[in-house]
Amino acid sequence: MGPHPAVAAIRLAVRRVLHDIRHDVGSPFPAGPPPLVLVACSGGADSMALASALAFEAPRCGLRAGGVTVDHGLQPDSDVRAREVAERLAELGLDPVERSSVTVGHAGGPEAAARTARYAALDAAAERHGAVAVLLGHTRDDQAETVLLGLARGSGTRSLAGMAAAFAGLGGGPADAEGTAPRYRRPFLSIDRQTTRRACLVQSIPVWDDPHNSDPSFTRSRVRHEALPVLEKALGRGVVEALARTAQLSRDDADALDDWARDAERDATRPDGTLEIAALRGLPPAVRRRVLRRAAIAAGAPAGSLFARHIEETDRLITAWRGQSPLNLPGRVEASRQGGRLVLQQANRWADGSAVTPGRSAE
Amino acid sequence: MGPHPAVAAIRLAVRRVLHDIRHDVGSPFPAGPPPLVLVACSGGADSMALASALAFEAPRCGLRAGGVTVDHGLQPDSDVRAREVAERLAELGLDPVERSSVTVGHAGGPEAAARTARYAALDAAAERHGAVAVLLGHTRDDQAETVLLGLARGSGTRSLAGMAAAFAGLGGGPADAEGTAPRYRRPFLSIDRQTTRRACLVQSIPVWDDPHNSDPSFTRSRVRHEALPVLEKALGRGVVEALARTAQLSRDDADALDDWARDAERDATRPDGTLEIAALRGLPPAVRRRVLRRAAIAAGAPAGSLFARHIEETDRLITAWRGQSPLNLPGRVEASRQGGRLVLQQANRWADGSAVTPGRSAE
Repeated sequence: MGPHPAVAAIRLAVRRVLHDIRHDVGSPFPAGPPPLVLVACSGGADSMALASALAFEAPRCGLRAGGVTVDHGLQPDSDVRAREVAERLAELGLDPVERSSVTVGHAGGPEAAARTARYAALDAAAERHGAVAVLLGHTRDDQAETVLLGLARGSGTRSLAGMAAAFAGLGGGPADAEGTAPRYRRPFLSIDRQTTRRACLVQSIPVWDDPHNSDPSFTRSRVRHEALPVLEKALGRGVVEALARTAQLSRDDADALDDWARDAERDATRPDGTLEIAALRGLPPAVRRRVLRRAAIAAGAPAGSLFARHIEETDRLITAWRGQSPLNLPGRVEASRQGGRLVLQQANRWADGSAVTPGRSAE
Repeated sequence: MGPHPAVAAIRLAVRRVLHDIRHDVGSPFPAGPPPLVLVACSGGADSMALASALAFEAPRCGLRAGGVTVDHGLQPDSDVRAREVAERLAELGLDPVERSSVTVGHAGGPEAAARTARYAALDAAAERHGAVAVLLGHTRDDQAETVLLGLARGSGTRSLAGMAAAFAGLGGGPADAEGTAPRYRRPFLSIDRQTTRRACLVQSIPVWDDPHNSDPSFTRSRVRHEALPVLEKALGRGVVEALARTAQLSRDDADALDDWARDAERDATRPDGTLEIAALRGLPPAVRRRVLRRAAIAAGAPAGSLFARHIEETDRLITAWRGQSPLNLPGRVEASRQGGRLVLQQANRWADGSAVTPGRSAE
């Protein structure tokens, strides 16, 4: 008799990813000990299940399994907790196992600050041990929650793309940029949370429930415990799966449109850096707005401050031209139409003191 | 003092659409009475508000305002109700006003069957009176509900595109296909339901609440009364607006990707109707899958039976080729790789009795 179905499912998911990692490492392996794969583990069911599957599969794939647990220092006794998690990882046979204490700042709110600190610690651990990959335990349920959170932003297809199955790091571009293998992998994006719980239960692996996960002051927790159950009641049991599928389809669509916009921007850009109105006008609106967004960011507008209304106003310089005065975009970027060209440039108001014609604000 | 803000908002929304309609009709107007715009009216707050705004704005735009109410015959006394609605439309000054009784079939479920019957009646009324447009009262809340319903299908960007602001008819293509003006318009997609209620209230227009709208046996009703309030509680008050914005962005993205797929299909198609593998392989997955879907439908696969898994299996003939046997797609369409070509063709198993090599099912 084989393993329990839940255990078989998590192992299969990990095996697939380890095969991808081996493929990326190349063959034959470099001399010395087998390449190391780390699991990032909070002690919760998702990441403990992931650790158990990694411990089982890694040696069978010619890889070593190690673990890292990050102590965010945000809860009382978090150091005790981290020590317990590290002990459990060692009991599963992971080696090396590392505890990493971080100081969480404030930038971008508590969740973003914790994430930044966590990835810095994981990056450092991967570098220190020369790991070829770091596995993360996010499940299909996490993915569904992420899509709903993105939906609430209402900022389109990219915001519905959820979490990537493989990526280079927090600041990094898409996983396969520049041909380098992605450091981070999420083997469980097609596995539901219940399966990871069951896998821990049948393997007698104790798990820890982070109280933050059920604290209704966190938006994600409200999505998990209030929004998704009601959506399932209203729309049917397949909602989580539908949201996860939406993530994958939206990611592919957003990637394709970004490709198109990159090519279209290149084709529309003149040697002096201005954009040809005639080339932009023929593009579908979805592509033209992406080109304008790229160009505004390239001119110095901070991506986070550039909203849909800025892009729409800029678009009207192309599609609804009636002699508008120049627009002020965030980051002191000015958008103006000059004959057959669209000019996006940063006004250097304070650096050299030169006079800048005040533009109309698109705020 | 101008009109109440709610009344000003609905009038402005209608005025914008009437300007578009005038633009499409062209100038100067044909001789004879002014062109007629009809409103489709159930007697609910949304469509009564729309009727009142149309009655006010149409003459100011050189247009005539008329109304149609459809009696679906699905509720007791629906004929009495339809007569009342018609009387109210006449009181608002609409002329002509028409009651249209329809027989609702069963195809596609009760909601789809009612919709089919309703649009047939509206099309007939528009033809009979030579109307240049028919206005529909769907609001931003309806749009948000439609996006959530599409999300539950999990079938990607097009399913998140919600309702079009302008379209030719139920069976019709996109609004601007072939340069003909769209018959149907939805002026209220940016107006919330509460505003239409308030506009009726302050204008002392009686409204009728369709009991179907609060019947929890209808999915849309559960989305409206259960899912959206909880989503707003979990994610914040802006959810309805974010969903409506998602619809617009998704529609533009889906249109752009469909354009790309149409061009890519043309470029990849050889004179014998087969597809060049080399041309398909270089496409982004989002575009390649759309090309495969188009080609399968062109070969005879019914769109409604063609699921993501069929397209993914077909895609593997291109991206993961290891000598697979031919695939059976819905509609007896067979997909096979023959050298450097992908062949999608319908097996005519019963028509002439010729032997057909049984393919592997992609079910």
